[in-house]
Amino acid sequence: MRKRDPTDAGNLIAFGMSDRHLVEVQLSSKELFQGRLLHAFRDQVALPDGNSATREYIVHPGAVMVIPLLQEADGTCRVVLEKQFRYAVGRVMIEFPAGKLDAGESRWQCAQRELREETGYSAAQWAHAGVLHPVIAYSTEVIDIWFARHLTAGSRHLDDGEFLDVFTAEPEELLRWCCDGTVTDGKTLTGALWLQNVLAHAWSLDWQNTDVLETF
Amino acid sequence: MRKRDPTDAGNLIAFGMSDRHLVEVQLSSKELFQGRLLHAFRDQVALPDGNSATREYIVHPGAVMVIPLLQEADGTCRVVLEKQFRYAVGRVMIEFPAGKLDAGESRWQCAQRELREETGYSAAQWAHAGVLHPVIAYSTEVIDIWFARHLTAGSRHLDDGEFLDVFTAEPEELLRWCCDGTVTDGKTLTGALWLQNVLAHAWSLDWQNTDVLETF
Repeated sequence: MRKRDPTDAGNLIAFGMSDRHLVEVQLSSKELFQGRLLHAFRDQVALPDGNSATREYIVHPGAVMVIPLLQEADGTCRVVLEKQFRYAVGRVMIEFPAGKLDAGESRWQCAQRELREETGYSAAQWAHAGVLHPVIAYSTEVIDIWFARHLTAGSRHLDDGEFLDVFTAEPEELLRWCCDGTVTDGKTLTGALWLQNVLAHAWSLDWQNTDVLETF
Repeated sequence: MRKRDPTDAGNLIAFGMSDRHLVEVQLSSKELFQGRLLHAFRDQVALPDGNSATREYIVHPGAVMVIPLLQEADGTCRVVLEKQFRYAVGRVMIEFPAGKLDAGESRWQCAQRELREETGYSAAQWAHAGVLHPVIAYSTEVIDIWFARHLTAGSRHLDDGEFLDVFTAEPEELLRWCCDGTVTDGKTLTGALWLQNVLAHAWSLDWQNTDVLETF
């Protein structure tokens, strides 16, 4: 049984006492299957009205997404993006660099590693933006959103079976692609919301030097 | 075997000839499991370099999300939102109304139905905004994004086992919640990107009357 801690701090932060009438409580849990990628569970839960119901979901280790900013000599900036074929949706998708957490890795270490492996870039400064739950109906997945700047180019190290193109675009181009349907990846659309508001100085970031982050 | 049509129009639109070097081709497909909600497959694919790999994914019927606008007497607008406990992430989430397509239902019919069932509102005007792929790494799910306005209140009809609160907020409040981590649902963050750009007149919508849409 996959146990859920009812005193989990995340829960207590996420809803106040006034939301208690919405909460479902775990009664039992069963592993539905363990694939090479997908790990699925089926739980019985007590509904707010006392009835019970079934909930099926995928357990995911968590992931990160990086919004890498390239400063141009004229003061403008470009973002680093990827094109990757995504088999589940049968399309080449435009995305910000992203990847799953390895065991024992911090979210920032993962952000650093994925940026370097997929694009070759290392960043001298990082800012944590927020988190994103991509699929709350059936996955535990949470994606940590990071900005990276002061980039230094290096060589890529793609995973076996990973094929992707790296390119850069102006923020205005990316936003146009979000509007016209060229970009439909959910995490990248959320990245565009962050990018637009950060560049407009509506949302602020707390930039940290890489050497400071390394001490955590 | 779940067959993939290589001449699928969606594929041909989504990538040009220049992206062909990224494409993976289905070799075989096996149902991994059929739960009450989750339907999973494992396919063998040919990679761009000729090697083969395994891809596991959830097959999803598709969904819609509605961004409902309430015009106030003073010309400002509020959005209709929901609070719902999402078991997979163990939290009460703030979300735009959304739901899965029923068999034989058009995306607009689904948008209309979900808005009415979950919030009680009917809309006299609708605009299709775009689509969103929430989880391209392991699900076929696509979410159609609609705006709704000229709302008339009515009574809700929640599904069995569905518990949610409906409330309204100013667009500025919603955007603040996206920035400060109160809103982390991916589809709602994408809805906020649309809302911000539509209200700023940066992105335009093609509004249709409900009676016109009904003739399709």
